[in-house]
Amino acid sequence: MRETVLHGANDIRLADTPVPELRDPTGALVRIVASCVCGSDLWGYRGVSKVDQPRRMGHEFVGVVEEVGTEVRTIRPGDFVIAPFMFSDGDCVHCRHGVHTSCERGGGWGGADQDGNPVGGGQAEYVVSPFADGTLVATPGVPDDDLIPGLLTLSDVLGTGHHAAVSAQVGPGDTVVVVGDGAVGLCAVLAAARLGAERVIAMSRHADRQRLATEFGATDIVTTRGDEGAAEVLELLGVGADAVLECVGTKESMHQSLAAVRPGGRVGYVGVPAGGPELPIRQLFSNNITVAGGVAPVRAYLDALLPDVLSGEITPGRVFDASYSLADVATAYADMDSRKVIKPLLRP
Amino acid sequence: MRETVLHGANDIRLADTPVPELRDPTGALVRIVASCVCGSDLWGYRGVSKVDQPRRMGHEFVGVVEEVGTEVRTIRPGDFVIAPFMFSDGDCVHCRHGVHTSCERGGGWGGADQDGNPVGGGQAEYVVSPFADGTLVATPGVPDDDLIPGLLTLSDVLGTGHHAAVSAQVGPGDTVVVVGDGAVGLCAVLAAARLGAERVIAMSRHADRQRLATEFGATDIVTTRGDEGAAEVLELLGVGADAVLECVGTKESMHQSLAAVRPGGRVGYVGVPAGGPELPIRQLFSNNITVAGGVAPVRAYLDALLPDVLSGEITPGRVFDASYSLADVATAYADMDSRKVIKPLLRP
Repeated sequence: MRETVLHGANDIRLADTPVPELRDPTGALVRIVASCVCGSDLWGYRGVSKVDQPRRMGHEFVGVVEEVGTEVRTIRPGDFVIAPFMFSDGDCVHCRHGVHTSCERGGGWGGADQDGNPVGGGQAEYVVSPFADGTLVATPGVPDDDLIPGLLTLSDVLGTGHHAAVSAQVGPGDTVVVVGDGAVGLCAVLAAARLGAERVIAMSRHADRQRLATEFGATDIVTTRGDEGAAEVLELLGVGADAVLECVGTKESMHQSLAAVRPGGRVGYVGVPAGGPELPIRQLFSNNITVAGGVAPVRAYLDALLPDVLSGEITPGRVFDASYSLADVATAYADMDSRKVIKPLLRP
Repeated sequence: MRETVLHGANDIRLADTPVPELRDPTGALVRIVASCVCGSDLWGYRGVSKVDQPRRMGHEFVGVVEEVGTEVRTIRPGDFVIAPFMFSDGDCVHCRHGVHTSCERGGGWGGADQDGNPVGGGQAEYVVSPFADGTLVATPGVPDDDLIPGLLTLSDVLGTGHHAAVSAQVGPGDTVVVVGDGAVGLCAVLAAARLGAERVIAMSRHADRQRLATEFGATDIVTTRGDEGAAEVLELLGVGADAVLECVGTKESMHQSLAAVRPGGRVGYVGVPAGGPELPIRQLFSNNITVAGGVAPVRAYLDALLPDVLSGEITPGRVFDASYSLADVATAYADMDSRKVIKPLLRP
């Protein structure tokens, strides 16, 4: 089979390897139907994070189960499944608290399991999922092809945008600002609107993303950034927002977020802190600003979000504005890196 | 009248000054019945924060209204009132959001109002309250003398401990750790128990404070500190706590709090950050730890807490373990500074 391997900065290649064997009694072999490239995949690709050894890529995918281990109880061969961006056993104390990303035996695709055995990535033709019952979520029946992009967002970006909104306690009537217009930011707009926010201000400088944000429920667009952008938010609302969803992860985006929230408001952040600053506790203290969020436990949100995707109530799959065959994965990386596309979908 | 003035480190004196005149039509002249010394008063006293000019002290008091301005609607002469530790107009956007500490026209006792007119402190015989309707809360009738200490805690320490618990979203069944065994920490124990926490672990090394913590609802006492203390919490609970209430404000106490919370847990902090560290965002991100709190908007909590104090359902007044006449205010400061007493009550 073919799988995507990052060898170093700007060096993405397809490797030809055997289909992985299912050895773990709790695992499942999945034939991948669709996967995609994540903003965080670009860190190694751009050379921002160091690539010490070749790394199997991809942590967002949907597929069809080919085979399950002897101890698997709920997932069956033939199931169409969604894989969260981290695997988790589903029954440790942290999973039971809904924090599957802190699972005691969990880990990341393209990494290794608790015993040190390598785990494949999602930008491939097949992968073996550890803890199939805890990790994978099966849809009722095999979905129509046009639902695939939406279901794929449940792997990461929709759940992550939703986590920003939930962490910021977004509720009916709230005013919300979304910082970041990548796929996660756009999904955060959608999530905030879904949770009943009255005003959703998307901060974006790109016409195509502004358009999608508006279709996802943004009521206002602010095109300026930093203190200028925050001032424009205050001008629009008369005061800072009840909630700000930080979906970038840089020093500048967090600064902008803290400047745009009202006293007593909440910042929900899901942008992986890229060497970002520590949080300014005096500013938070004086203004009673809550900071919540982190690496999104998307597994915990799948039950709530899946029905809305299946029913077409929400259409997060629209964040995929380009589709590539796996053979063209290097082009997909390059196009995302240059911001030519918002998020590339990959078909094996 | 006599009022307490801090002239510099270790230099607390009583001044003899005229009873303040009520000039502001929204204000009220209050005869102070009881006040107290706050841990934060000790900063200037200890020389930790600089005292540039003599400062009128005291921001926690209860008293009887002697006179009200022509525009005051709800507060009347003869009312027994509780004063939150900051004054606030009660009708700006931040007050309406329950963040009275960010009131657009509010400020601190012993400081100045928005027009720059000096505002007296609470460690005195009389004080003029700005925005009487927005700031002061009247009890139904004049309370019995034995209720005075409890009512006085509504000025600050009970509301502040409660703010830590509310910020950390403490609810029924939660496991809670309280860092800090001063009056605020002890009130946080009480607040957590009142909100239904199942386990409340008080971290304290002092027998008298441990005893009071237990009476306030602590189920466990941990006498160690730092990483050792956090490890003991994890040993007791099997995992970090659902909520940690940080009631100190130092670098060490925040470190200990973050080490004692479980992934996905919440740290509610009310300890004024004393030059403390910035918050370690990578640690928060990886573990989905919420950090919330700040300077407590105690005015917002008065309606909820007052009935429980009046009914005797809770007895937060027990944090006052010594009483002084105003003439002995310097001794009260010295005794609190040396940790001889938890919190000194002052009677004019």
